[in-house]
This record gives sequence, structure tokens and C-alpha cells, in this order.
Amino acid sequence: MSLLVVGSVAFDAVETPYGKVDRMLGGAATYFSVAASFFTHVNLVGVVGNDFTTRDASVFRGRRIDTAGLERSDGKTFFWAGKYNQNMNERTTLATELNVFADFKPKLPGTYQSSEHIFLANIDPTLQSSVLHQVTRRPKIVALDTMNYWIERTPKELRETLRHTDILMINDSETRQLSNEHNLLLAARHIFTLGPKALVIKRGEYGAMLVHQNRSFSVPAFPLEMVHDPTGAGDTFAGGFMGYLASIPRVGDAELRRAMVYGSVMGSFTVEKFGLERLKKLKRPEIRARARHFYKMTQFSL
Amino acid sequence: MSLLVVGSVAFDAVETPYGKVDRMLGGAATYFSVAASFFTHVNLVGVVGNDFTTRDASVFRGRRIDTAGLERSDGKTFFWAGKYNQNMNERTTLATELNVFADFKPKLPGTYQSSEHIFLANIDPTLQSSVLHQVTRRPKIVALDTMNYWIERTPKELRETLRHTDILMINDSETRQLSNEHNLLLAARHIFTLGPKALVIKRGEYGAMLVHQNRSFSVPAFPLEMVHDPTGAGDTFAGGFMGYLASIPRVGDAELRRAMVYGSVMGSFTVEKFGLERLKKLKRPEIRARARHFYKMTQFSL
Repeated sequence: MSLLVVGSVAFDAVETPYGKVDRMLGGAATYFSVAASFFTHVNLVGVVGNDFTTRDASVFRGRRIDTAGLERSDGKTFFWAGKYNQNMNERTTLATELNVFADFKPKLPGTYQSSEHIFLANIDPTLQSSVLHQVTRRPKIVALDTMNYWIERTPKELRETLRHTDILMINDSETRQLSNEHNLLLAARHIFTLGPKALVIKRGEYGAMLVHQNRSFSVPAFPLEMVHDPTGAGDTFAGGFMGYLASIPRVGDAELRRAMVYGSVMGSFTVEKFGLERLKKLKRPEIRARARHFYKMTQFSL
Repeated sequence: MSLLVVGSVAFDAVETPYGKVDRMLGGAATYFSVAASFFTHVNLVGVVGNDFTTRDASVFRGRRIDTAGLERSDGKTFFWAGKYNQNMNERTTLATELNVFADFKPKLPGTYQSSEHIFLANIDPTLQSSVLHQVTRRPKIVALDTMNYWIERTPKELRETLRHTDILMINDSETRQLSNEHNLLLAARHIFTLGPKALVIKRGEYGAMLVHQNRSFSVPAFPLEMVHDPTGAGDTFAGGFMGYLASIPRVGDAELRRAMVYGSVMGSFTVEKFGLERLKKLKRPEIRARARHFYKMTQFSL
């Protein structure tokens, strides 16, 4: 039971209608691994610069996160700045400074090479492929995230990576862009011809939808009276989803549904505060309680 | 167990990416009553012109729909023309000809005046109020739909009508506009101070959400590979919702949830074809089967 994540560790500057933070720890692999560590042991592969302090690294300590794969390079850590609009449903990227991430070549420590569960966060598909090449035995589940940038600029490389992907986790517009199909069921059917056997569509305030085989399963977003910062919600979702799947011996339909719920649960916590603030203070009983809340919110009898 | 609906009976011209119909029967009260008649007996109040033929009226025959309250006036029937964009998520109104509807004053036949369940479709709030004044005993449930036009132009009259409303059934943007609050939970809380005890938010392709007391319940939209015409989906939803509630002796949380599902089920059929085509051919076993499908699509265990 080991879960490998490869992706960005970053500093973010974020402005939302509820506040402004000039520099806080972020990055897909950070959100993912903290969320997943509530469920299983996580092996983290990423890169940081020499501005990344022991204090920054403290978010990983005391959790089931192995940072032997977190490379340290000469230079500055990846930096992203963004601003959300009044309704939090749109964001503007104000700055993307790749810094040490520009030359990042993921290298898996020996102990990571037999990972059974792998999450390839949103990075260059060529790097995603290079991770899979370093794995010594066939993983049980490879899940992947990507974005419009790679769908447009490196379609061939992305297709090659998708051939080896079991679960694709993207949002509505990426689903439509990748498949060139507006209807999500038809989009899913197209995506299944590219490799993935399951598609998880992240829909923000509208929840998430799983399509696999001929079934679909939907889970709403948790209704919150206050969303402070949506940054990292999708990666936290992925962390809860994959963390749960990596923690159980066998994955079937019931388990995929439960993973959707745990993904939604974790994502709903992240947005309650800025950055990782809420996740850092999160306790396991809160996860169970919110999962029960999702249950109450969706169940009915006929 | 009687369900009264007051609203428009109309002719529609609709264009979607899947076709174009120059004149078909429509109107909120039409969709509502046909949908509700699968569950209970419906009393219809509305007005048509002398272009409304026996053939047009045939949609109501052979169903549990009483049309004694469907007035016939000298002039033409209400006409609406609209066009949907490629993704069906936006529509442009091309024409609204009120015709006989301009002077419509709802008059309840004597047998309708003791209706226990009332649905006030989207019309002038003053007319909605006038319906409630004609009712001789306190109804069990009054549900109401409205739109941006009334929220902006007749806020005072709408507030007066809302004071006597149990369930408000509107869409996201109307919810936000009426409450002047983007967050839907806070919006619901505001709306509850105006009268309604429950809020049903219709979210189109994202499903529907019920908020009442301190609980929320969400049901996704049924994923369809082909949506031909979204016209009438919201009114059909209301028909399934209220039709179900009017068919049972006691309404609690479990029954409201089931009503949300039946509303979604009925709405999902309507959009499969143009206008009332799908509802006209619908059979009860199909309703049960699709409700079970909703069940499969949303249920999970922890």
C-alpha cells in the first residue's frame, strides 16, 4: 500500500474577496500529499529551491509523507500568484514563475519504484511519462490530472501518457476540450478510447462526477456558508480520492464511489481557509463526520 | 388530494442545435399539469385564445387533469419564441407575445377553491396573490416560481406573495438576485425570513438542491447523451415534485427528498424531445425505472 505523487511544490500568492496572502505554501503535490496522508502512506516527488526552509517543510512532518523524493535545487521555488473574482468561480493568474521547476526531471528513489498507486499531478505529460518509465512493476492504479495548456500544446505527448492512465481526473472544461465533445457522457466515451477506464470530472461548486464502464455516479459539493480560498481544492480532492483507494485491498464500484466522497470531503475542508491552513489542523474524526454529512445530504429512499 | 396549478398555456417556437419547431404547445401550466398528472389529480387554471383547438387540448385528455379552469378568451394564445445556444446552457428570447394572457385574471372554479396543494407558476405576483385570496381554506402546501422580471419590477408585490408561500422553486441566479447573496446557503437563510420554509434551487445540467430547516439535499441531473430541447424542464420538475407531494398524506424530510427525485426524473424526460413530445408518450413504469436509476447514480455506503 504505497501512494506516489509527482507534482509541484510551490509558493502561492492568493487574493480572494476574503483576504490576501503574499506567500504561502502550495502546489499540487503538497495539497495532494497532505490530504492523502490521512488515509495512507505517501511518497512525494517534487522539487523546491533554496528558499524552501525547514519551517516550510514542517507541513510534511508528523504525517505519513516520505519526502526523500523532494529534490532541492539551486534557485527559487516555483511561484504562482492568482486572484479570484467576487464569486470565486473565476480566477486570473497574475504570475507563474517556474524557477527550479523549469528544469525539473522527476527521479524516483529506489523505494518508490514499486509504488502500487500513482498520482501524476498536472505537469508536462512528458515528465508524467518519465515517472511511469521508472516504475519497476505494473502499478494497480495510475491517476492523472492535466490542464488546457498541455491539451493544446502537447496533445501527442498527453495521448501517450493517457494510454497508461487508469483514472483521469480533470474538470468540465478540460473534459470538453480533450474530447472535443460538449456532452459529458459522450466525452467520457471518447476519453475511454484513449486509455483511461474511469473519468472523474471535478465541477467545483457543483460537485464531482465519476463515469466508468456504463455507469455514472455524482456527488454534490459540500454547501459551505463561507469559501475563503478555492486554491488546491482539486488536488486535495485527488488526495482524498487516491489516498482512500490506496488504503484498501480491492477496488470495485462501491470503493470508487466512496473515494469520490472522501475526495469531496477533503476538498470541502481545504476551501474553508487559505492555503493549507484548514488541512493542517484537520483531525480524522472531522473527516468521518463530514463524510456522514455527505451521506445525509444525498441519500433517499424510493 | 387535489393539486391546483395557475400559469401559462402557450404556443412556443423553439430552435435548438437539434432542430426547430415553429409552433408547439407549451407554457408552464401545461408542462406542470401533464407531469403532475402521473402522480395525482390536477386542476388547471389558465387562459387560451380562440386559436387553441380541440386538438391542442387533447394533451390534457385521458389524464387526471381538470380543465374547467382553462378560460377561453377572444384573441390569440400567449406566444413565446426562443433559441438555445450550442451548449443549451443559454437561451435568447426572440419573441414574447402576451396576447390573451395580458388581461388574464385567474378565476378559480368553485371546486378548485379548497385545493390542498397549489403551484403558482411564474406569473405576475399580484395574480399569484389573487389566487391565494380565492382559496377558502388554508392549503397544505403553496409552492411558487418566479423570475428576474418580477424580482426587479414588482419586488413589493412579490414579497407579499412570498409571505404566503411554503416552497419557493427558482434557479441559482434568481436565488442570488432575490436574496442579494451569492452563497446559496446564506441566500436560503435570507429567503426563509421572507416566508418560504423550503427552497428548491433548480440548477439545470447540475441538478437541483433543496434547503429546508438546517438541512440541504442535492440531486444531480440525469446524464443524458442527447438533450434535444430544455424548454419546460423546470416546470416539469415542479410538476413531478408537487404531483408526488400531493399524492401522499404526510410530508416530511424523506418525502421532500423523494419529491426532488421525482421532479428530476420528470424533467429529465422532457428534455429528451421537443416540447411535450416525450411526456405525452411517457409510461409510469418508465418513471419508476428512471427513479431507480437516480438511486443507483447517487447512493453510496461509508
